[in-house]
Amino acid sequence: MSIYIDPEVAASLRGYEVPERLGFGTAMAPIMFRAVYQDGCWSQGELIPYAPLSIDPAAKVLHYAQSCFEGMKAYRTQAGGIALFRPEKNAERMAFSAKRLCMPPVPESLFLDAVRTVASYCANLVPGNSGESLYLRPFLIGTQADLTVSASSSYEFYVIASPSEAYHSGSMRLWVEREDARAAVGGTGDAKVGGNYAASLLSVGRLKERGYDQSLWLNPSDRNSVDELSGMNFFAVIEGTLHTPALTGSILEGITRYSLLELAESLGYQVVEESIPVDRLLSQIASGSCTEAFACGTAAIISPISVIGDAEHCYELQQAPGPVAEALRQALLDIQEGRAEDRFGWMQAVEPASF
Amino acid sequence: MSIYIDPEVAASLRGYEVPERLGFGTAMAPIMFRAVYQDGCWSQGELIPYAPLSIDPAAKVLHYAQSCFEGMKAYRTQAGGIALFRPEKNAERMAFSAKRLCMPPVPESLFLDAVRTVASYCANLVPGNSGESLYLRPFLIGTQADLTVSASSSYEFYVIASPSEAYHSGSMRLWVEREDARAAVGGTGDAKVGGNYAASLLSVGRLKERGYDQSLWLNPSDRNSVDELSGMNFFAVIEGTLHTPALTGSILEGITRYSLLELAESLGYQVVEESIPVDRLLSQIASGSCTEAFACGTAAIISPISVIGDAEHCYELQQAPGPVAEALRQALLDIQEGRAEDRFGWMQAVEPASF
Ligand SMILES: Cc1ncc(COP(=O)(O)O)c(C=O)c1O
Ligand SMILES: Cc1ncc(COP(=O)(O)O)c(C=O)c1O
Repeated sequence: MSIYIDPEVAASLRGYEVPERLGFGTAMAPIMFRAVYQDGCWSQGELIPYAPLSIDPAAKVLHYAQSCFEGMKAYRTQAGGIALFRPEKNAERMAFSAKRLCMPPVPESLFLDAVRTVASYCANLVPGNSGESLYLRPFLIGTQADLTVSASSSYEFYVIASPSEAYHSGSMRLWVEREDARAAVGGTGDAKVGGNYAASLLSVGRLKERGYDQSLWLNPSDRNSVDELSGMNFFAVIEGTLHTPALTGSILEGITRYSLLELAESLGYQVVEESIPVDRLLSQIASGSCTEAFACGTAAIISPISVIGDAEHCYELQQAPGPVAEALRQALLDIQEGRAEDRFGWMQAVEPASF
Repeated sequence: MSIYIDPEVAASLRGYEVPERLGFGTAMAPIMFRAVYQDGCWSQGELIPYAPLSIDPAAKVLHYAQSCFEGMKAYRTQAGGIALFRPEKNAERMAFSAKRLCMPPVPESLFLDAVRTVASYCANLVPGNSGESLYLRPFLIGTQADLTVSASSSYEFYVIASPSEAYHSGSMRLWVEREDARAAVGGTGDAKVGGNYAASLLSVGRLKERGYDQSLWLNPSDRNSVDELSGMNFFAVIEGTLHTPALTGSILEGITRYSLLELAESLGYQVVEESIPVDRLLSQIASGSCTEAFACGTAAIISPISVIGDAEHCYELQQAPGPVAEALRQALLDIQEGRAEDRFGWMQAVEPASF
């Protein structure tokens, strides 16, 4: 199905100046994509000027958090073009998230058309320094106006975009979160839905007061093995081997995570995907057998971890960033930014729109 | 602080006709209350016509479910007046929910002014048959436009209202939910926040296909003791004694629940608040020592439970509704609708506004 391009789109784009200081996810591109689901069908997609949404005060998304989203990037490549990284994986994960909340999955073709169209019209807005990108945020919300606790009958799907600088988290100080949980066993931790993030805010607020940056979430079932961070997956280098927690149902399966697993193997690293008991991890840091730890996700790609704090102790990693983190970050970014051959077929070029 | 009354409010109310078929939470009153939180301060409250909200596509509420709400009723009393039931308890619980998600609590005075003003202007919309009411829905949402996973810097607080008929759930067939969870230990189950309800939708969708009405949620820690329903607390009558699960951190503390506990004691029932292992409960139903079970909440007050299904078995309650449920429902409704003396000081009269 073709996408309707609102006549105002060209003027919005021509009148827009990319701010000098970008930040991450704060400057918004002046256009967006919308499609509406009603009576069991998706409407034609539209590219329209970025503008406030009109949402009924009784809409399900506002009361019952019936919403899911994705995070992905359009990169400016070495050759000057624009490319997306594995967008079909985001389409697939968003369909999974939608089903977890009884929302109609956005069809893969609609999802891909949407992100490609936004990237294509925003081609001039994709910043060009290494690490910079156009961050794309597809999201789906339940819009039916009805206070009953039940799935919405109508939905809206949007893609908004933000020209963003490299996400500089620096090296992070984590805190082992032993009280709160971001998701339950049998809950929504493996889906990218709003409630997980809402539940994580209090923990992060608390640890910031103590000089930490991010919570290290434990598995809600055993309250002992490492799950992930609020918005990134966890890796550690232990005796030269790369470890990451196996998926448990409460971990969001990051696209960066499994791309890194594949990449690391191809670079000759030993890779282990299994449970990581936090107490063992901490003593491996103390004894020096764990030399590096890092987190990964679309925004930062890889963020080194310098310290993990727990109760009275503060465990310092030997190297942050360490050599494995540096090598993986560079290898992945080289593929994403077109400096290295795309051996895995991960990149999809997007033709800039002319308007 | 006085409330600003928009000049359109009177016309909106005069032009509104209460629909003949009300339903519950579907017909919306034509006015609403709004207050805005920005730069650390609450704005003056305003009573304005009911209208779609203008929400930035990057607002935190849409992506990270930073939202909480309350549910309460204005009743038409025997004498023809309007009264609220323990509104300060809703104010208190909403402040608790807000803090769990790092939102600024709505000050008690602002909350109470808001619900009283809405009830007062909607006095003519409060239906008069026993069990009918004006359902009030206060809610608070994070509105900052910024894709960072962090607490919003700005918020909007609304109260909307819905003239509603008695919430007829009939007698309910519950299903013991042994896979999914609505909330985690250390999660948000004891707060009235959107994510809990989003997480519950899939389970309810599944069991409806099997002929059941509601999930019976188990404690996410032991996966064995009864917590509650998706929107109601659980009670059982076992050997003549009234049992309800003790609060565990994953149960929402219902205002109906603790009002019923107080009322039941005053009526001479033995009341026990402790863990209820579901297997024991089911065998007590099978043996006949558990004679009644019911759920309670603002909407339905008390809903009898006729069946609890688990794996291959279907456990039928002897009486649905049973005599204890009937007596408690009548006693509470008699207070709420002003037929019985308000011995506990629960009711607050609201003066109808003249406009
Ligand atoms: C909870 C959580 N875990 C992990 C990730 C990493 O996923 P991805 O690599 O697909 O960005 C994200 C988001 O980006 C996340 O929100
Ligand atoms: C999860 C949940 N439990 C219990 C209740 C009952 O609370 P209350 O009696 O205050 O209405 C509600 C809501 O009404 C609820 O949403």
